[in-house]
Formats: sequence, structure tokens, C-alpha cells
Amino acid sequence: MNYQASHFLYELGDGVATLTLNRPERKNPLTFESYAELRDLFRAMVYAKEIKAVVLTGAGDNFCSGGDVHEIIGPLTKLDMPGLLDFTRMTGDLVKAMRACPQPIVAAVDGVCAGAGAILALASDIRLGTARSKTAFLFTRVGLAGADMGACALLPRVIGQGRAAELLYTGRSMSGEEAERWGFFNSLRAPEDLLAAAHSFAHGLADGPTFAHGMTKKMLQQEWNMGVDEAIEAEAQAQAICMMTKDFHRAYHAFVAREKPQFEGD
Amino acid sequence: MNYQASHFLYELGDGVATLTLNRPERKNPLTFESYAELRDLFRAMVYAKEIKAVVLTGAGDNFCSGGDVHEIIGPLTKLDMPGLLDFTRMTGDLVKAMRACPQPIVAAVDGVCAGAGAILALASDIRLGTARSKTAFLFTRVGLAGADMGACALLPRVIGQGRAAELLYTGRSMSGEEAERWGFFNSLRAPEDLLAAAHSFAHGLADGPTFAHGMTKKMLQQEWNMGVDEAIEAEAQAQAICMMTKDFHRAYHAFVAREKPQFEGD
Amino acid sequence: MNYQASHFLYELGDGVATLTLNRPERKNPLTFESYAELRDLFRAMVYAKEIKAVVLTGAGDNFCSGGDVHEIIGPLTKLDMPGLLDFTRMTGDLVKAMRACPQPIVAAVDGVCAGAGAILALASDIRLGTARSKTAFLFTRVGLAGADMGACALLPRVIGQGRAAELLYTGRSMSGEEAERWGFFNSLRAPEDLLAAAHSFAHGLADGPTFAHGMTKKMLQQEWNMGVDEAIEAEAQAQAICMMTKDFHRAYHAFVAREKPQFEGD
Repeated sequence: MNYQASHFLYELGDGVATLTLNRPERKNPLTFESYAELRDLFRAMVYAKEIKAVVLTGAGDNFCSGGDVHEIIGPLTKLDMPGLLDFTRMTGDLVKAMRACPQPIVAAVDGVCAGAGAILALASDIRLGTARSKTAFLFTRVGLAGADMGACALLPRVIGQGRAAELLYTGRSMSGEEAERWGFFNSLRAPEDLLAAAHSFAHGLADGPTFAHGMTKKMLQQEWNMGVDEAIEAEAQAQAICMMTKDFHRAYHAFVAREKPQFEGD
Repeated sequence: MNYQASHFLYELGDGVATLTLNRPERKNPLTFESYAELRDLFRAMVYAKEIKAVVLTGAGDNFCSGGDVHEIIGPLTKLDMPGLLDFTRMTGDLVKAMRACPQPIVAAVDGVCAGAGAILALASDIRLGTARSKTAFLFTRVGLAGADMGACALLPRVIGQGRAAELLYTGRSMSGEEAERWGFFNSLRAPEDLLAAAHSFAHGLADGPTFAHGMTKKMLQQEWNMGVDEAIEAEAQAQAICMMTKDFHRAYHAFVAREKPQFEGD
Repeated sequence: MNYQASHFLYELGDGVATLTLNRPERKNPLTFESYAELRDLFRAMVYAKEIKAVVLTGAGDNFCSGGDVHEIIGPLTKLDMPGLLDFTRMTGDLVKAMRACPQPIVAAVDGVCAGAGAILALASDIRLGTARSKTAFLFTRVGLAGADMGACALLPRVIGQGRAAELLYTGRSMSGEEAERWGFFNSLRAPEDLLAAAHSFAHGLADGPTFAHGMTKKMLQQEWNMGVDEAIEAEAQAQAICMMTKDFHRAYHAFVAREKPQFEGD
């Protein structure tokens, strides 16, 4: 995907796209424009076969401070209901696009991870953090509900219903140590190693059976609210599809030859 | 709400209603009458705008020992099926009412927290405990299923499916330390600080944007078994509603003026 | 159940059936025949009133290495789509049967617990492990999706969505210590004590109110994707049924007589 981003940095190398929110002097806030561009980019990724995995991060020592008060909250206070719903649907569409693209998204989270920024981390597949990071679902601090961009659905499944309720009602920061202990972060890294660790993780996935990874991501989404028996049938179909791929055959032949399989994503 | 409770203590101060189960010599058991009165009180809270948050606790050093063997179990052994269903529906209606009222409920749990008492804690939004507390889903000990008042739905989402299964099959006590580690308790407090901590938490919520808090609680319930995309659309609507509140505008203007917002719940 | 197993060891004593995968020189792999026989046995257990609980384990120092590469993966690479779907549905039917039988299943997991073996542990009700155990959802290593036999539905509810995603995307081993910390294992035991601990747990359940245990298991399954209010009504009905059992009356009378109740499962 020959892509030139306007509102964040975009790099593609060896199948891994790196998206860097890049207004470090403001802790990388989101704006109307960057929301929309992120949404469009993740939507386009469904068809971007050359992108195998994504790293999402922020410039400087912070991940993302969320919706900017002056550039987003201020204008929102002047909108009527259809205008407000246009906005909340657009931000929700960003999360929908992140969950719908087949590429696993690895969030590298240091420093401030707040409001809609915390949602971007939550909507990722894998989250690596730092001990000094502070993740806060801040919406209540601006008089809003914790119900923003899917947080009341997603967060309880990641850290449990009781802990999610506390963070959403209070808006308090979750420390890096808490986030790892509760399963929000998959692991903690030293700040200077964080981005490299996220790239290493993403490249590991990009070198794997990416068609199958896309199916794993799709089924984690599909089975969210299925019954157990229906989920098992859904996986019987999904896995039978994956058994038709060349990657499955490559793995078998590599195993027999006592070699490491070379996956190609088809 | 000018309310005089008959079967527990009720106090309202600064927007926080404190409900204290109060038969400390019996570790605060529930009776037919106290179940029904609690159900009716939580139902009435939907319309009690002056109540912003609830603290639920027990007198003495215990939370609640559950349904009394002599006053509840004995009579139940003499009922026919319609009578039994009347009872199980009434106790279930208490949990439904706790989940349906807009006020966040903060449970302060010390000592014994057993049977239906454990369910009252589970049905609360926030749980503060003590190291010496013992929480037990005792139903199996009286020959019944762990499926009581919604436990098989609620407990797995709070502490995970595997740990919930163990507690529900065995009826064993979960220690305070386990309960914190597993996400049942939001935090542990010294027994002498527990009630003050619960009040501090509840007053913090009562001073916040309570209309939005009620929406957070409603959406945590609504999205329980929605798909992710449907939950995101539901939150787009819910949050757009909250953006129409004065509290949202108050927060913005306070931020611009570098002041602390004064929320009023409208 | 006068049962003679062909593809694993089967013993029944004091109401507890012990199933031992038994090709220790190969770390107890599954074959087409053992999948089918396990499925048929768990299906038959619905009617086997004399079996009150199940222990599932592996011979030697390993639980199960999953589908054998030579005996399963190889033949699968030669099948057409209907043949593949026959296989994925058969393996899924094993998990469905494990979740549908009324007996709680206690998995005793030491050493290798991989691929379909990890699913057998996941599909159990209670999991006891060892520090040296290694549980890996290996499917990605053979080019397949993590969506196998219900893993994308079951694993997130046990250990959380973020940790499940990591294990399913990468196929990496979860250590015994991680598995306990994350709620996959209910507890860790020394290898030499593991099987005795699983039997002790299973006999404890077998001596309990087994009709009610079967209802607990059924409702944990039924309520998987119900709304909270619907789950509460479902439990009102389920528990009213249990209140009609003799075990409920036995428990009450034993309590009044200050004796330990003797449950009989009816």
C-alpha cells in the first residue's frame, strides 16, 4: 500500500505497517482529521495484502492523550444531536475498522494513554506497555459516560467486569504494573526497548501463517456473543477453510523434513 | 427519598444512601422480608434523583451470611413448585433491581460474605473487601446448584470462568487475598478503614457526572451479550445523549477556565 | 457403566471415572480413533448415572501432545473440503460432549499440554497443573488458525481476551506459573501429588449433590451468551428444580440435626 499519511506517521517495512501518532509536544492528541484518517486506513487494510501486521504507537514518551479538548471537546459542545451522533459514530467506526481488518495490531504504549487513546490501545490485539505508562478511560472527567467507542463491551472482557467498572466510573489511571497484572498489557518493557519489542512481535506474526492469523482475529470477533456450541461449529468451518491453505501443507512438509516452515500467507 | 427501612438500616447523606444489614448477632442473614424490602428499595431508586450512589454493608464485622437456614431454607422445603419459583424469582428480582438502578453500588465486605450475601456483593458495581473476609457461594452445601440469582452469568465475567466454576461447584471460601488477586474485590482495606473507604468512593462518584454514571451502568448491562459492532453503535447513541447534558458543557468550560468542574447530574 | 476403552485407559471407582491418555512414549497424542472414542464416551456419560465426576489425565509426565503430526496432520493434507469438515466437526463434537455431560471434569495437567490437548484441558471444568507444565495452543505453528474446537470462545473467558489473543496468535507455551496466575489452572501441585489432588477434588464433587452439580454445569453453558436478566430468570427456574430434590431436604435436615449431610444425587 503506497500510502502517504497526513495526520500521523506511516511506514511499511517487511510486511509490518507502523502508525505513529505524532504531535509529541501535545502528547499525541487525536483530532477530527486523524480519527477519520485512521478509520480510512484501517478500512483499506482489509484489501492491503502486503500488510501482514500493524504496530500502533506514539511519538516521544507518550502513546496518545485522546481527543483534544480545544480541537474536539470545544466544537462538540456546539453541535446538535445529529452532529454529535456523526462524531460518536465516526470514532466508533475507527474501532470497528481496527477489529475488522485481518492484520493483528500491536500497540506499544508508553507514558500517557488516555481517553480515546486508551480505546485505541484497547481495540488493538496485543498491548505492550511500560511500568511508567498511565492508562485512563477519562470520559467521566469531562462529564461523559464510560460508554465510548465500545469500552463497556471490550474492557470487561480484557480485565474483568469489576476492574473495568472501577476504571470506567472513576476515570482513574491504571498503572503499568496493574495493567500487566490485570491482563491489559501482555507484558511490560523498558521504555527504550518498547518499540523494538512491538516490532519484534509484529514481525513474528508477519512471518507466520497470516491467512490463518486473519481467521483467528475474525473468529475472536465473530464468537464474541455466540453460544459455545455455535462457536464450535463456526470454528469447525473456519479451521476447515484454513486446512485448504498452502501454509498448512507447507507446515506439514517442513515438519516431515525437519525444517522450519516458510509461511507465505496463502 | 424520605425512606424508613424496616429490615435493615438506611441512611442518606450528601447523595449517598447507606444500606446496612443489621442482625450482627447472626452475621446479618437475609429473610423473606429483607429480600423483598431490598428489592423494592432498589426498584424505587430508579426514580430517586437525590440518591447518587449507594453503599451496601453489614453491621458488626460481617457482611451477610445469606439466606437464614431456619427462616428461609426450612420453609422452602415445604413449598410446592409454584411457591419455590415465587421465591427464586423474588431473589432474582433483587439482583435485577440492583443492576437496573442508575446509582453505582459500592459493597463494603468484611468477615462472612456467604450464599445470597455473596450474590449481593457480586451484584454490586464496586467491591471493597478486607483480608480476613471470606466469600463463599455456599449453595452446593445445602444441596443446590451454583446457579442462584445470576451467579453463573455474573461471577465468570468478574473472576474468569475457571475460578468461578471452582467456587460454584465446591462452595469453598475465597479469601480476601484471592478475591483481590482475581478481581472480585477492587481493593482490600483494613477492617477499621473499610466503611470510610466505601463512603469516600461513593461520595467521589456522587460528586461526579451522575447522569453519565447511570449511562455507564446501563451500558455495561445492555452490552453484556451484544456483538462488538452492535455495542459500538449502542455507545455511539449513549454517548451522544451524554454530550447533550449540562455536565459535559460544565466540564469543558471548567477546563478552559482551569477550574475543577462542578457536576450536577444533569 | 461397564466400559472397556480401546484407545485410552478407563477406570471407574467410587463414582469417579478416570480417563488416562496412554501413549506416554509419544506424550499421549490424539488419533482419529481416540478423538471418536472420547466423544462417544462423553456422550454416553449423559445417561451414566453411576459416574458422578471425571478425572482426565495423561500417562507418564505429560498430559497430551495433541493431534499427531503423522497420524492426523498428514492425512488431513490429502482430504477435500467435506472430509476436512468431517474432521473439524468430529473434534468439535468432542468439546461439545465434554460441555454437555453433567459430570464435572477435572483435568490433571503435567508436562506437555499442546494443541488439541490444550483444548481438552480448556474444555474441562477444573484444571490442576504443575509448575513445569507447558500449555500451548499450537495451531498457528502448523499454519492454522487459533480457532480450533472452540478455543476463540472458551479461552478468552478463562484468561481474558488479551492474554488469549497472544496465546492463539503466537502458539507460545504458557508456563505453569502463568497459567495459575491467569486463572487457567485452579492451582498448581507437585507432579507427584497431582493425580491424587485431582482425584481428591473429583471425589469431593462426587460425594456432593451431583444432580445440582449437573445443573451448575448446564447453567454455566446455557447462560454463556444470555443477557443478565434472562440469566437470572433461567437460574430462578433451575434452582427451583433443584429445591425439589431430596438432596436439598437432606441438607436441611442434616443442618438442623447438626450432622454432615449425606448427598445421593437425587
